[in-house]
Amino acid sequence: MTATYTVTGMTCGGCARSVETAIRQAAPSVESVSVDLDKNTVTVTGAVEDSVIAGAVDDAGFDFGGRAA
Amino acid sequence: MTATYTVTGMTCGGCARSVETAIRQAAPSVESVSVDLDKNTVTVTGAVEDSVIAGAVDDAGFDFGGRAA
Repeated sequence: MTATYTVTGMTCGGCARSVETAIRQAAPSVESVSVDLDKNTVTVTGAVEDSVIAGAVDDAGFDFGGRAA
Repeated sequence: MTATYTVTGMTCGGCARSVETAIRQAAPSVESVSVDLDKNTVTVTGAVEDSVIAGAVDDAGFDFGGRAA
């Protein structure tokens, strides 16, 4: 299962890495996490609840905007 | 109590905010958290164990280097 979420507040590769790490910490079973800085999106492949992603993004200091259209 | 830690991997204001938020989430009782991007340091005022700071920085995807000299 792959889902793409809107995450704002990421401005550089360090931010992207931070979001990736936070999601992997919160949901170790996910297969892949990739950030698109231009589109302000994070795509996650694996079985994980949206609320877990939301919490991880929030705790890492970025803004979770739900599933991207 | 104020302690300054070395944290590497932060390259912009978004990174700095991420580290600040992660520390505040992990240690809500701290009085202040401030990041110096030029010096790669984070200064924390409040009663908190170094290991809590280390864990928060790590989980946020940055590198904790212990107490700064």
